[in-house]
Amino acid sequence: MRNKNVLITGGLGFIGSNLARRLVKDGAKVTIVDSLIPEYGGNPHNLHDVKDQMEINITDVRDSISMDQFIPDQDFLFNLAGQTSHLDSMENPFTDLDINAKAQLSILEACRKHNPDIRIVFASTRQIYGKPQYLPVDEKHPWHPVDINGVNKMAGEWYHIVYNDVYGISASVLRLTNTYGPRMRIKDARQTFLGIWIRSLLEGKPIQVFGDGRQRRDYNHVDDVVDALLLAATRSEAKGKIFNLGAPDPLSLEDTAKLMCDQIEGANYEKIPFPEDRKAIDIGDFVCDYQAFQSTFGWKPKVNFREGISKSIEYFRKNLDYYI
Amino acid sequence: MRNKNVLITGGLGFIGSNLARRLVKDGAKVTIVDSLIPEYGGNPHNLHDVKDQMEINITDVRDSISMDQFIPDQDFLFNLAGQTSHLDSMENPFTDLDINAKAQLSILEACRKHNPDIRIVFASTRQIYGKPQYLPVDEKHPWHPVDINGVNKMAGEWYHIVYNDVYGISASVLRLTNTYGPRMRIKDARQTFLGIWIRSLLEGKPIQVFGDGRQRRDYNHVDDVVDALLLAATRSEAKGKIFNLGAPDPLSLEDTAKLMCDQIEGANYEKIPFPEDRKAIDIGDFVCDYQAFQSTFGWKPKVNFREGISKSIEYFRKNLDYYI
Repeated sequence: MRNKNVLITGGLGFIGSNLARRLVKDGAKVTIVDSLIPEYGGNPHNLHDVKDQMEINITDVRDSISMDQFIPDQDFLFNLAGQTSHLDSMENPFTDLDINAKAQLSILEACRKHNPDIRIVFASTRQIYGKPQYLPVDEKHPWHPVDINGVNKMAGEWYHIVYNDVYGISASVLRLTNTYGPRMRIKDARQTFLGIWIRSLLEGKPIQVFGDGRQRRDYNHVDDVVDALLLAATRSEAKGKIFNLGAPDPLSLEDTAKLMCDQIEGANYEKIPFPEDRKAIDIGDFVCDYQAFQSTFGWKPKVNFREGISKSIEYFRKNLDYYI
Repeated sequence: MRNKNVLITGGLGFIGSNLARRLVKDGAKVTIVDSLIPEYGGNPHNLHDVKDQMEINITDVRDSISMDQFIPDQDFLFNLAGQTSHLDSMENPFTDLDINAKAQLSILEACRKHNPDIRIVFASTRQIYGKPQYLPVDEKHPWHPVDINGVNKMAGEWYHIVYNDVYGISASVLRLTNTYGPRMRIKDARQTFLGIWIRSLLEGKPIQVFGDGRQRRDYNHVDDVVDALLLAATRSEAKGKIFNLGAPDPLSLEDTAKLMCDQIEGANYEKIPFPEDRKAIDIGDFVCDYQAFQSTFGWKPKVNFREGISKSIEYFRKNLDYYI
């Protein structure tokens, strides 16, 4: 990526900021766009120590006139800006539509008009599959979004594939599972429940596990996701394709809570009944099949969950004030 | 449907007007919403002889304030308004998004707020499947929209399913294949190529077949589609479900052209190379598998294509001035 011009939407967010840090280390010329909407993942602290090594713009991807300025001359676009909260998407479906679908279309239109040679990677979500009909869930699994966020992310990813197929604008889609690590949002559960669990741990409160805690989940450390994003951006086999990410060591929610409590002396968890609004969109066990991505690119998760969560807790312990 | 309050969006259009005529015959109280946008299917002539038997409102489904007025008190909503042209969706992707996705979400929000007991049927399209990986294409076939229209229709149908699943607003989706019959748009190919072919026949011009004419298509007569819409609206097994329609007698484009030319003395067709813009989104053979809908509801197409096209040509011969 040395000397490449790279645009990251949502670059002050969790995954975007970790990617940006990697890219400047690799010698790329990084431009960040982030709206810093308080409910989303953007956080100036995520890049405070490296901000002089990149261009940071506080702009909303829905502002197509601004976005038009950033697209030309970029070699790569990591399209990570998004509304990620399932509950927010049900409460404000039009906001979710504007960010996760319409803004994506307007970014792609800008690429078509001003920079058709750009290489795009779009971050999508395993939420598109809905409640699994079988495990692990591969890319052929039927799609059945269970909330408005899933529908709009599905539209967002398919705009990318259509622009790839029809206009030849190279675009790839990664469907991410629960991603965790330093710089994630821990204020609440808007990114993943792991965020609010880390906050609870550090504030000495019990972790709240919904239901019986037996639902299994898979977790990717952000460093592994950054590796995957870079592979998707630079390997031609990824063009026009949609791939799952995932991890080899799924855990039940209760085992996840236990493992996290092991990290802190005296920490504990409690099981509570599913809140009504969560119940309607819960999907039971979910484990992603990432064999397609693994076999095509040789990618596999390097960071073991216990080690990754331990380092993440360490990060947030030192930086807690900036994240709550 | 006797004495039921029924709202039809796109009710002055091809399928909507045929449905409206059936419903008033069955004693329903029909309200029509149609924008009469010149490029779309709405045509006042479609209901000119029965307009006193229903309420007709010239309103756009994108106008959520107007739409909010029509939703309360309806027993059924046939949600047929849509932008149907694949090429228009590539030229004006945001218009397509506003009509086929955003307006659908706003209609569903109005239902949630003002009339959650309403029963909705949404007309979607087999275009969502893209280029077939096998034939006939059933509902489990992977989805791969090849144009922006396909992406937005996919979002539109899934908003309906999410509102069904999460809020209990009964909604069903039918994915239609090429539908033809009286009152279709024949001015151009915006609804299906059969429209412009009928126009060519009646104007004494050769039918233009793109490519080698060997691509197979299946055709549903609008009367059969109206039957299917009424089944989907009234049978509980349809709630929250997506079904294909289709026909048992697919034909190659060349055979279709021959059969249509048989209807008119001296009519002929010509093969011409695929226009570039069409080529990029062409999908080869396409035949829908409608066994799920057939076995659940006992529906099958009654109108044979030769008979249906003959009667359609007869209709347009008598009414040509209103359609060109």
